[in-house]
Amino acid sequence: MREFDHAAAEAARARQDQLTKPPGSLGRLEELALFMAGWQGRARPRLERAQALVFAGNHGIVAQGVNPFPAEVTAQMVRNFRAGGAAINQLCRVAGAELSVLPLELERPTRDFTLGAAMEAAEVQAAMQAGATAVDPGADVLLLGEMGIGNSTVAAVQAASGFGGQPADWVGPGTGAEGAILRNKLRAVAEGLARHRPDSAAATLAAFGGREQAAICGAVMRARQLGLPVILDGFICTAAASVLLRDDAGALAHCLIGHESAEPGHRRLIAALGMRPVLSLDMRLGEGSGAAVALMVLRGALACHDGMATFAEAGIGAGVD
Amino acid sequence: MREFDHAAAEAARARQDQLTKPPGSLGRLEELALFMAGWQGRARPRLERAQALVFAGNHGIVAQGVNPFPAEVTAQMVRNFRAGGAAINQLCRVAGAELSVLPLELERPTRDFTLGAAMEAAEVQAAMQAGATAVDPGADVLLLGEMGIGNSTVAAVQAASGFGGQPADWVGPGTGAEGAILRNKLRAVAEGLARHRPDSAAATLAAFGGREQAAICGAVMRARQLGLPVILDGFICTAAASVLLRDDAGALAHCLIGHESAEPGHRRLIAALGMRPVLSLDMRLGEGSGAAVALMVLRGALACHDGMATFAEAGIGAGVD
Repeated sequence: MREFDHAAAEAARARQDQLTKPPGSLGRLEELALFMAGWQGRARPRLERAQALVFAGNHGIVAQGVNPFPAEVTAQMVRNFRAGGAAINQLCRVAGAELSVLPLELERPTRDFTLGAAMEAAEVQAAMQAGATAVDPGADVLLLGEMGIGNSTVAAVQAASGFGGQPADWVGPGTGAEGAILRNKLRAVAEGLARHRPDSAAATLAAFGGREQAAICGAVMRARQLGLPVILDGFICTAAASVLLRDDAGALAHCLIGHESAEPGHRRLIAALGMRPVLSLDMRLGEGSGAAVALMVLRGALACHDGMATFAEAGIGAGVD
Repeated sequence: MREFDHAAAEAARARQDQLTKPPGSLGRLEELALFMAGWQGRARPRLERAQALVFAGNHGIVAQGVNPFPAEVTAQMVRNFRAGGAAINQLCRVAGAELSVLPLELERPTRDFTLGAAMEAAEVQAAMQAGATAVDPGADVLLLGEMGIGNSTVAAVQAASGFGGQPADWVGPGTGAEGAILRNKLRAVAEGLARHRPDSAAATLAAFGGREQAAICGAVMRARQLGLPVILDGFICTAAASVLLRDDAGALAHCLIGHESAEPGHRRLIAALGMRPVLSLDMRLGEGSGAAVALMVLRGALACHDGMATFAEAGIGAGVD
């Protein structure tokens, strides 16, 4: 397991303080450069290969009427990703990320978690393995996203199970639930919480699903082993990754949260995690879209860190004392 | 004067609602696309040429000991911009903006505004003209930034003169003022406010300076005539542009504020303007750096708007009703 390299981060900070700007004046951009330096173990971190993985899955919970879209849309959106027509395709192109989309047995939805366990242990394991295997060990940063009709209901029950609170604290409109559909979401989450009391990451994934959530967990764990920095996307992606904290309080140390989603549970979840998103742009699409916009900021951060002249190089006298 | 084209913005919104995403789920990215559509008069706005202008000037107010850096640093930083060593160079490269740096009579600082008018009317006019002339009428968006040792003191007095409040409401650390230097800034702003009661944009620029502020005003006015959308940078840039509101309440209708600076007066100024910054990344460097990061987000917004498939194109059934 590659740990955060404090010496590299310190060397990066020493460099930052010599660059032609008032100390700290690039704000989050400087913090991002230090984060990358520590995880990459380089005072001048690089960002040549950015990998974006979008996992897709289907969910038995849609039988409870929790989503205005039918489950078929998951596969239709996978085709849209592959044809280059989704938001994440455009954002990865602008941000310079290589996108891979991994549908996970779409024809075999997880089971309805209000009636029993969503997945068997072996199914959880297989999906986690699919996520882990998809990670490119040569990447400089990994972006994670998801697609799956019904999966904001899964995220809500995962978050409620892990961090407490009422269903209404975590249930939001998702792709557009309102009225009866929103009430169905709330009821499904309440029933899921009453039925399941998981006490580990694997048990949580088995209880509620889904395959894309398990794949995100597998990818996050693999990246942690590699010391590969990760940019999580919005509510569903963050809720999935946060399941790992049941087993290991340091499981997300190598992760940034790319943006704060407009899905209301995300703000609460970010607060529970004690993390700080890079961006807040009222986005609530998923697919890794917020992570991809955050990658643009990260590119700016590392370009400054690497490309700026020092005061000495620029022949500027003092710096501030 | 080209005005906002509501029909083009409506056509852009109609397109947005057909794209393969829940309506509104790209949040600010959708708003940015509509803003650009209206100002460009195109349902599918383009972003081929992004021009970044950084104006630099020197300020007599530095004689009051308002800045930890000496005035020579302005010219040194201009050389750094030209050599490609500053933050704005790296950020423009990543964001795809063409950077021009315009030093404005650096060897002839404006006069100390605590003692009299900083500039004569003809000097204001010349600097505004320099700003207007620098605008490329063929650009698709214009980014504005500034450099000038002492100019956060000028921004503070401009904002206090225009929007009221006490000097302490608008004076912040700038490039790193603290202790005696910060007290000097507060005193200089109080003395400037006591001495000058300007009632027009030109009078405000004459009273307090500086040349880069006047150039920003000239560029904003020229862009308004052209219907060219503008991304303002942080506190100093926004304060400069806001001077124009003395003459015309609609003077900034074509402007975005790229980011909320960590310089404390900026948040107050943005609130006074009733505007909403694109980003908030704790940056406080100036040079157009926050505008350049915002341009990256804008590129993502327009790439989604232009490149995404519609539900019909992707063969996805319903959309949400």
